[in-house]
Amino acid sequence: MTPNLQPNLQPGQKLARGVARYLRSLGYASLEEFVPMRGLRVDVMALGPKGELWVIECKSSRADFQSDGKWQGYLEWCDRYFWAVDTEFPTDLLPDDTGLIIADAYDAEIIRMAPEDKLAAARRKKLTLKFARDTARRLHSLRDPRPGQAGGMLHSAGEENDRA
Amino acid sequence: MTPNLQPNLQPGQKLARGVARYLRSLGYASLEEFVPMRGLRVDVMALGPKGELWVIECKSSRADFQSDGKWQGYLEWCDRYFWAVDTEFPTDLLPDDTGLIIADAYDAEIIRMAPEDKLAAARRKKLTLKFARDTARRLHSLRDPRPGQAGGMLHSAGEENDRA
Repeated sequence: MTPNLQPNLQPGQKLARGVARYLRSLGYASLEEFVPMRGLRVDVMALGPKGELWVIECKSSRADFQSDGKWQGYLEWCDRYFWAVDTEFPTDLLPDDTGLIIADAYDAEIIRMAPEDKLAAARRKKLTLKFARDTARRLHSLRDPRPGQAGGMLHSAGEENDRA
Repeated sequence: MTPNLQPNLQPGQKLARGVARYLRSLGYASLEEFVPMRGLRVDVMALGPKGELWVIECKSSRADFQSDGKWQGYLEWCDRYFWAVDTEFPTDLLPDDTGLIIADAYDAEIIRMAPEDKLAAARRKKLTLKFARDTARRLHSLRDPRPGQAGGMLHSAGEENDRA
């Protein structure tokens, strides 16, 4: 079950994998470690059939959650905001007005739907375009890695090419 | 120079690879074999920094070009339309009012810029969303292939998931 492109996933990345599988079953296409703007990196950005943009932050432990001082900055970059945690996580810590997904490395489930706060049209357009271009560049780097370029390393390729 | 994910490229796919590399150097993110609508499949769809959508059809020979009865149907799905051919191709065959790219498997160059015929806003929005979602699903299938799913085979994955 461990694909060769993902040999050593961190706990948060395992949750992200399960989240992406689950979201796909809902018709959402996911991109991990998306940078909506310089200095912000979300764990999973999901794009729905009608252009809905959801952010999912994956937290593997209480400490992981408590050390995140940035999450409120993500709210303005999505229509809905979710946490993804495992069954051991103390979910009482999480704010009530955010979505909750319980996940493991293989699957996930929405436990509490996030409230909707729709993006303005101009920001949605810009974000969708960046999502499309960043994703295509990562796919290109994976399909056509070249010596001397960052293409051989998935995450570096994503980062290097995340131009706003 | 032959990456393991692309072991046996057909002549047209080699041109597409060179085209995608070149377009990347221009700041365009490419997706191969994109389906703008059911029944149409373009060789390369490229998405520019401002949302420009270019279609590039790769023709490996005179016969390849002459057997294509569909290309005019692609014009309404892009802002600019190009042919990509190798140096041996009889370019006199190609219509003057289309763009021309000379390519090989490693690089390419625009010889004649295509005229611009801008997409209507609603179609651009829909196409950009489909490009984003199709690309993310292909990337996901490559990064997280699963037994019993088409994810292990790049093109099948793309096709299977090309839902409008």
